[in-house]
Amino acid sequence: MERRTFLGAGAALAAGAVAMPAVAQSMPEVKWRLTSSFPKSLDILFGGSEMLAKLVSEATDGRFQIQVFAPGEVVPALQALDAAQNGTVEIAHTASYYYVGKDPTFAFASAVPFGMNTRQQHAWMMNGGGLELLNEFHKSYGVTMLPAGNTGAQMGGWFRKEIKSLADLNGVKMRIAGLAGRVVTKLGVVPQQIAGGDLYPALEKGTIDAAEWVGPYDDERLGLQKIAPNYYAPGWFEGSAMLHFFINLERFNALPKHYQSVLTSCAAATTIDVTSKYDARNPAAIKRLVAAGAQLRQYPPDVLEAAYKATGEVFSEIAGQNANFKRVNDAMVAFRSDQYLWWQVAEASFDNFMIRARARG
Amino acid sequence: MERRTFLGAGAALAAGAVAMPAVAQSMPEVKWRLTSSFPKSLDILFGGSEMLAKLVSEATDGRFQIQVFAPGEVVPALQALDAAQNGTVEIAHTASYYYVGKDPTFAFASAVPFGMNTRQQHAWMMNGGGLELLNEFHKSYGVTMLPAGNTGAQMGGWFRKEIKSLADLNGVKMRIAGLAGRVVTKLGVVPQQIAGGDLYPALEKGTIDAAEWVGPYDDERLGLQKIAPNYYAPGWFEGSAMLHFFINLERFNALPKHYQSVLTSCAAATTIDVTSKYDARNPAAIKRLVAAGAQLRQYPPDVLEAAYKATGEVFSEIAGQNANFKRVNDAMVAFRSDQYLWWQVAEASFDNFMIRARARG
Repeated sequence: MERRTFLGAGAALAAGAVAMPAVAQSMPEVKWRLTSSFPKSLDILFGGSEMLAKLVSEATDGRFQIQVFAPGEVVPALQALDAAQNGTVEIAHTASYYYVGKDPTFAFASAVPFGMNTRQQHAWMMNGGGLELLNEFHKSYGVTMLPAGNTGAQMGGWFRKEIKSLADLNGVKMRIAGLAGRVVTKLGVVPQQIAGGDLYPALEKGTIDAAEWVGPYDDERLGLQKIAPNYYAPGWFEGSAMLHFFINLERFNALPKHYQSVLTSCAAATTIDVTSKYDARNPAAIKRLVAAGAQLRQYPPDVLEAAYKATGEVFSEIAGQNANFKRVNDAMVAFRSDQYLWWQVAEASFDNFMIRARARG
Repeated sequence: MERRTFLGAGAALAAGAVAMPAVAQSMPEVKWRLTSSFPKSLDILFGGSEMLAKLVSEATDGRFQIQVFAPGEVVPALQALDAAQNGTVEIAHTASYYYVGKDPTFAFASAVPFGMNTRQQHAWMMNGGGLELLNEFHKSYGVTMLPAGNTGAQMGGWFRKEIKSLADLNGVKMRIAGLAGRVVTKLGVVPQQIAGGDLYPALEKGTIDAAEWVGPYDDERLGLQKIAPNYYAPGWFEGSAMLHFFINLERFNALPKHYQSVLTSCAAATTIDVTSKYDARNPAAIKRLVAAGAQLRQYPPDVLEAAYKATGEVFSEIAGQNANFKRVNDAMVAFRSDQYLWWQVAEASFDNFMIRARARG
């Protein structure tokens, strides 16, 4: 308040010598660098980096510039967090669950099997204590995190052969990432780690039998419907998948307060934009995929039940060895239980009626 | 680009006489006024006004101030749009469907019976052409609109007597707002317009038999479970309900470009915060309501079917007389159809599994 009073009517004092340094100081030039984990071909995801940079620049009249780098230009895709941690860049645009190798606790900010849907995950982060809890954990990595959007519920993957029951998963070699890989091992699946661009030849040669990627809009460009047309839902391992900006904590704290605020509000605007783009574009993409040969199928109930049970086992195992994981998992599970108690009352009953009404025409 | 080059390294040039006016000009003092349609007792909704003002002030180091007024302080609650239109205030924080009396086209930005869920509505607005279409319509009112959050799927109202089938609605006097009132007339309901604070005595005296308000968190403070305990879902007339900032178009256009950008990004941040607050707080509220005597019930299928059919009839009638309404309705219906085609595949099947899994414990 004192400071504002001192500055007084900024425009009126603008020509005066006394007020100048303070006014100028309030809009310093800042140049930051951002490295993305997402290739430019994933245009909604990579577009989140560009959107943040554009909004921050616009809000500061061009004074706060964020230069965006694609994977490999500064560091490889999956070293984005490290680059923000060690100050090579100020921001990593990535998904926290890429770093479960460092600590499985990193899974919760993005997605865990049978986790929460998009709105529930955002509610947990923004008004359910999730972000505070996770940023406490992130402190030891020298970064602070902001949400950067969500893909929505993902698809459950492309399979060469139809999966009619749990038994059909036995021995299936599937590209599946993160903790879900550990879960499906209990179902007889052999999880594989393969980059997106290599999925088509791997399925063609029979190196793998199945692959999960994202959802209709992002999956479309992989062309997997030609070679593994059985397209399963839901992506029980990613009922939603949040993306993130990890910001070097020291550099963030060194920003003027109002630049911190600009960055935070512009990240929120980016979050809405990215999520809305997936929601707006997935419907047309799934229609095109079906027209191109994709066979839409729902996972058989016994597969979902077995995966749900296996998830509980895997998470108990990890929680027994990792206090951070246990603390965050306990918080998520409690929040999720209350969320779905409410969700069934109005949200799901509205959606289910609308789905039936649409199907009848 | 030229301008930035001229300004050069702002901080370094800050002490120089030449650069000063440009720097000062970039952070002019602006004082705006906002009038809210929402009483302070609806703390999430009214809090959206305060959040916008706080974020805009923070992002501009206190230079762009928005003073928030509760209903009645400047204009009554439902004259907020008029106040923004005629320049009494710069911003109205309201819900567009309060203004269906001016033109029923105002309904679409908030909620129409059997409209879209929260994410679909946001996707339509932000990346589906909805906002452009509606702001074209708003031009003749001298305002431009930004989303300001969403209540999520609302509840379907409190009834003194249980509604076991469509026949039980005949003659029921129900507080229900907007176009939904016209729809329920076709179901034999007698719609009433009563302010929130008057609902309890109206139900107690038998002036009305039923009342819809919002959802668990906002409904809780009305105490209606004591007097009309049958609490119905879903709120088929508000599968989501978007709130808005209506901004005087001339004043918005007169803002420096970066203040326009700040306002827009901070409105997006407010949108996420408001929506997340409802999502985070509704579960505990519904548990408290049930503990206090609320009887949770789902609308009988024949009521939903009849309401769906009646909505189609009412909307056809209005579209036949109002070209704006027809244009926006056609766009919404097409977008909604594609949305629910996709929603059933992954989103709803994930949610429905999680609801069943939770119920089993």
